Amino acid sequence: MAVNLRIPGPTPCPEEVLQAGAKPMINHRGPEFREMLLRITDELKELFYTKNDLFILTASGTGAMEAAIVNTLSPGDRVLAVSIGEFGDRFAEIARAYWADVVDLKFDPGTYADPDAIRKVLNADPRIKAVLVTHNETSTGITNDLAAIAHVVKGEFNKLLIVDAISSIGSIPCPVDEWKLDIVTSGSQKGWMAPPGLAFVSVSQRGWEAQALSRMPRFYFDLAAAKRYLQRGQNPWTPAVSVVFALDASLALIKKEGMESVFTRHAVVAKKTRDGVKGLGLKLLADERYASNTVTAVRVPEGVKAADIISRMNSEENTVLAAGQGKLDGKIFRIGHLGYCTEDDIQGVIDGLKAVLPKVGFRG
Amino acid sequence: MAVNLRIPGPTPCPEEVLQAGAKPMINHRGPEFREMLLRITDELKELFYTKNDLFILTASGTGAMEAAIVNTLSPGDRVLAVSIGEFGDRFAEIARAYWADVVDLKFDPGTYADPDAIRKVLNADPRIKAVLVTHNETSTGITNDLAAIAHVVKGEFNKLLIVDAISSIGSIPCPVDEWKLDIVTSGSQKGWMAPPGLAFVSVSQRGWEAQALSRMPRFYFDLAAAKRYLQRGQNPWTPAVSVVFALDASLALIKKEGMESVFTRHAVVAKKTRDGVKGLGLKLLADERYASNTVTAVRVPEGVKAADIISRMNSEENTVLAAGQGKLDGKIFRIGHLGYCTEDDIQGVIDGLKAVLPKVGFRG
Repeated sequence: MAVNLRIPGPTPCPEEVLQAGAKPMINHRGPEFREMLLRITDELKELFYTKNDLFILTASGTGAMEAAIVNTLSPGDRVLAVSIGEFGDRFAEIARAYWADVVDLKFDPGTYADPDAIRKVLNADPRIKAVLVTHNETSTGITNDLAAIAHVVKGEFNKLLIVDAISSIGSIPCPVDEWKLDIVTSGSQKGWMAPPGLAFVSVSQRGWEAQALSRMPRFYFDLAAAKRYLQRGQNPWTPAVSVVFALDASLALIKKEGMESVFTRHAVVAKKTRDGVKGLGLKLLADERYASNTVTAVRVPEGVKAADIISRMNSEENTVLAAGQGKLDGKIFRIGHLGYCTEDDIQGVIDGLKAVLPKVGFRG
Repeated sequence: MAVNLRIPGPTPCPEEVLQAGAKPMINHRGPEFREMLLRITDELKELFYTKNDLFILTASGTGAMEAAIVNTLSPGDRVLAVSIGEFGDRFAEIARAYWADVVDLKFDPGTYADPDAIRKVLNADPRIKAVLVTHNETSTGITNDLAAIAHVVKGEFNKLLIVDAISSIGSIPCPVDEWKLDIVTSGSQKGWMAPPGLAFVSVSQRGWEAQALSRMPRFYFDLAAAKRYLQRGQNPWTPAVSVVFALDASLALIKKEGMESVFTRHAVVAKKTRDGVKGLGLKLLADERYASNTVTAVRVPEGVKAADIISRMNSEENTVLAAGQGKLDGKIFRIGHLGYCTEDDIQGVIDGLKAVLPKVGFRG
């Protein structure tokens, strides 16, 4: 029986995607790779709902976050880092590592980023050049109202808007051009149903203007090099060819299913997860109005150990759940339901929890 | 008939390596991955002939080169960049991008880095803190005498020695501890017979001392984070899991063959390549005393176009050769013979060239 891998990435890959990743190596500077790279790039742009440039980097999503920052900012630039959890904090940390002047706007775990609060900070501090924001916070299971945030950041203040959409885009609507998102990042192991190893970053015209002025040091993640090489159908550095093969196959599946159907499936599966968990007497971490359709964070009931739930789900129910990160370690467990995920997969999780919970001391 | 992929990476992967890369995804923060990551790390250390720390990054070899620099140097640090080709130049470029004060020592393409010349520069400029050097220059097919260079840099001057061994270590002897190499980089798609996507970097005690003082900005490539996470059997950011699976299988094959046998096989195959090419009346780019055992650069004869040789070898002989890079574009073609390569593979290349050369205007 296959393991039910229910973490928010790496997500399970369809068998045909795994097999595509096992194709023999080819020259990454030859015609076959060129055709594939250009086609995949166009497909990703379509699925990002954007006409902006888009680049495929060999890195995790964190690499794409670094690329987003170091290509658009200069040391000393004041930047607003909106955080509702671990990944929002990471965005701020990257900017600080490269000597940005970071203004933090933090919201409690399980809550969403309030656009009014963002407006207030931007009003009070006109020196802020750019805003970093997480679309979907994987550590808490919250999807921010990015449309409303973008309306403030772009529509009212016309600041550079840099978005971590790593665990949202491709699973949750995130129309890059409609919302005027300048830099948007994602990773192959999330909703895209491919193995980890590739990260994506889209760059608006405004993003390129920032890039031209940016003085943060960069080499591996230099998007000007990525652009120059993409014109000849290449990456500047040797790409993860087997993951590109796999992504090629997974994008074909996504296109076949249709992006709207993919969004609907994620919404249905997520609701089933939340309803199932609540039906067992458990509580969600997330403010349910903003609960994520890609990952659900569940509060660990009093008197129960998170590690016991996770290890028994693994050993007895063949189901892999994710632990809490950082300050939430031990306080929550998380169920990933992005990418290759069906209602049956979620039923398996709920049934498993039903069997395991009484054994770890949960009295309902 | 399988393509004879004879470029210096990505190299062909044995079928069992490709199939290992198609295994279902697992939790990169779970026990199964932990066991694999720790085991592979130990195996790589053994094959690097080192007791130093070693980290597996999700990136190309260029990412490991960047990691080597940004973890050990500070802006303004004077560093000697020894270059005999494109990859030596790249090392200098990365250091400059991060504001190092780079002193260039360049040698003509096809020649080797003279240890006496390095001694002279180090003698003349005591402010130099570190030396960047390429062990095997993929763009020209030269293997530097790294033992002699290390003897000067470490033995006589005790400077920090940072080595690009991307296309050497694992194929050509490069005993890290014996030669006292502080930072050594490689990539999965070279002699390691795995797909691209992972890069390796080893760090000596002296390297860690430099790391503690280094002020170059870094996040994705921060080796302190890599060290912290490796203690719990994890990578800081999501690794390219499928490539790790593949590498696990390829390292098992290498260990089975035995490192000494791998070195001998590379030497035999390389000699066969050089002899074969010369037998056809072609000339090598490399000073043959320093000719590489992983890649051979062949001068394009007068009146012949490199692109014609490469494209006919591809379409008529099912053999993929590499073009020249940078200033050598059009002047050479290159034959990769590292990793998964037999004498038969090389015989195929020579036979192919014999058939193709007369058709592209070569009169021998």
